[in-house]
Amino acid sequence: MAAILAPVAWRDGHLEIIDQTRLPGELVFIRLETKEEVWQAIKELKVRGAPAIGIAAAFGLYLAVKDFPAQDKEELCTQLKKAAEYLASSRPTAVNLFWALKRVQEKVSGAEGLTVRELKELVLQEALSIQQEDESMCREIGRYGAELLKEVDAILTHCNAGTLATARYGTALAPVYYLAERGKIMHVFVDETRPLLQGARLTAWELKQAGIPVTLITDSMAAVVMSKGWVQAVVVGADRIAANGDVANKIGTYSLAILAREHDLPFYVAAPSSTFDLSLATGEEIPIEERDPQEVTHFGLRPVAPEGISVFNPAFDVTPHRYITAIITEKGILRPPYRESIRQMFFK
Amino acid sequence: MAAILAPVAWRDGHLEIIDQTRLPGELVFIRLETKEEVWQAIKELKVRGAPAIGIAAAFGLYLAVKDFPAQDKEELCTQLKKAAEYLASSRPTAVNLFWALKRVQEKVSGAEGLTVRELKELVLQEALSIQQEDESMCREIGRYGAELLKEVDAILTHCNAGTLATARYGTALAPVYYLAERGKIMHVFVDETRPLLQGARLTAWELKQAGIPVTLITDSMAAVVMSKGWVQAVVVGADRIAANGDVANKIGTYSLAILAREHDLPFYVAAPSSTFDLSLATGEEIPIEERDPQEVTHFGLRPVAPEGISVFNPAFDVTPHRYITAIITEKGILRPPYRESIRQMFFK
Repeated sequence: MAAILAPVAWRDGHLEIIDQTRLPGELVFIRLETKEEVWQAIKELKVRGAPAIGIAAAFGLYLAVKDFPAQDKEELCTQLKKAAEYLASSRPTAVNLFWALKRVQEKVSGAEGLTVRELKELVLQEALSIQQEDESMCREIGRYGAELLKEVDAILTHCNAGTLATARYGTALAPVYYLAERGKIMHVFVDETRPLLQGARLTAWELKQAGIPVTLITDSMAAVVMSKGWVQAVVVGADRIAANGDVANKIGTYSLAILAREHDLPFYVAAPSSTFDLSLATGEEIPIEERDPQEVTHFGLRPVAPEGISVFNPAFDVTPHRYITAIITEKGILRPPYRESIRQMFFK
Repeated sequence: MAAILAPVAWRDGHLEIIDQTRLPGELVFIRLETKEEVWQAIKELKVRGAPAIGIAAAFGLYLAVKDFPAQDKEELCTQLKKAAEYLASSRPTAVNLFWALKRVQEKVSGAEGLTVRELKELVLQEALSIQQEDESMCREIGRYGAELLKEVDAILTHCNAGTLATARYGTALAPVYYLAERGKIMHVFVDETRPLLQGARLTAWELKQAGIPVTLITDSMAAVVMSKGWVQAVVVGADRIAANGDVANKIGTYSLAILAREHDLPFYVAAPSSTFDLSLATGEEIPIEERDPQEVTHFGLRPVAPEGISVFNPAFDVTPHRYITAIITEKGILRPPYRESIRQMFFK
């Protein structure tokens, strides 16, 4: 198989990202040198996917402080806090973003006896660690997921929970890449994922790029693909998972989970343990961002719906845990009852 | 409520149609004065929807012969036949188009003792009859559907089975218009209906035009709208119905039927009796057209998926009868078991 590209890379003092808004037409790398550029890139979905956003934001913190003339640790921490609040506002529902920002801040505030210069270096090191750990985590998700999928010829996935969303390998696609690296190539059906077409633009692109056979469908065709027996499992990522196993993920996921159940197909969620938010008892507590109606009413600048039409455009939906066959994490495979298996993963 | 516009109207010696390729951006009426203009309008989808195409073609026959200097009935019939063959070539898969052309020709060939002038008048009268009968049929579907939906505040629909596809009123939307004309306004949620967006472009437009409150969603959002309790029923049209009640309709319909069942919502199909094909025992015998991959991979001319990607793009899917709560026809409401209720409708 061909190489799997990394969407975020640190290169000689700046951040380099693949501009995902230019895919699948062009593979364009862009250079981010300030926290404002990082904020903008996250806001405009040039970098997207919870882990990749977290990694980009962590590097964004370093860009925010590297030239800041702090006199002491306290001043640096104040600046870090301001920058973290700013970066967090780029995508107010991304828990992984907050987690990464908090982790870097805590690393610095917990460090003793270092100079401001050394503390700044610590920010960069922590961002690099987050990135490396994410890659390892994804590989572990791939390894566990491969156990579930090793006999499977084809899966259906939604949106992009692939290498472009993470440091590398992805979450939902990690088992596909893991198995492909070991000579077992499966076929992936991917929903285009309206309104923003992450499936068509990104997942189809990255799988093709890596030499994995892929078939693109509209979201409305998933049920037919299932009924024909063309896929043996559905695998999706997650934006946030509540303590009871309810999963918030890209709009359309809930629908797929119901359709999978109806066709007796296993429905797997693949996500790192950082996606779990144990402060939320159930998925009902997960806030769902509503996005610009224009994403639905326009194709680019061209209107495809009557002017002024009312639109409902939630970015995510919540899949109740009862539809989920297993949750694949880097720490192992969680099975129902999720309240127990999730607690055990965190507190054993 | 505002007026329900007819997509095809006969006005003082010419045909006036709404140019549906200009919707939803502009409401443009165009004047068709020759059979060539009618052919072009059908070919270019300016008029679409099986019943509306049939009506336009019937008027096209009148335009073809009204000034033709036929000496006798035989000469007129030859001219009619030539015009019918020509008009039929505008949309070679439209069964309703052939049916309408044949009906007008048979009316003329079966008429005795009329002058050429009177026979020409008969062509026009038959075209007007086809139009009026379609309108009555739709109104009857509306009346029966209203019995099922009179307590309902909001429905979800898919694609365009509205006034734009018929003489007036539509099929799936007929109950909505029927109730609206009697002062009961319901709210309609409409799937955009990828890949060709008939929901966004046509259904959203015609409902808004008629003063019916409408909310546009992507196909992937239907499950969420259902889970929130925002709709109390799903109503769709049909392209073809088998003898056991299996329904072929726009891709995405099968998915909606499963989702409706999971949310305990009634799933209604509204269609005239001409949609039933009793030569087909089950939906498995209905051939499903696969369309150009470019409908999925491109928005207009702009690619939104990697070049050369494999695509599955069926135009229709088949919803097994077990998911269908009732089928609303102009002859009444059919309930399971459908093999019996359908037979009864045709042979009682």
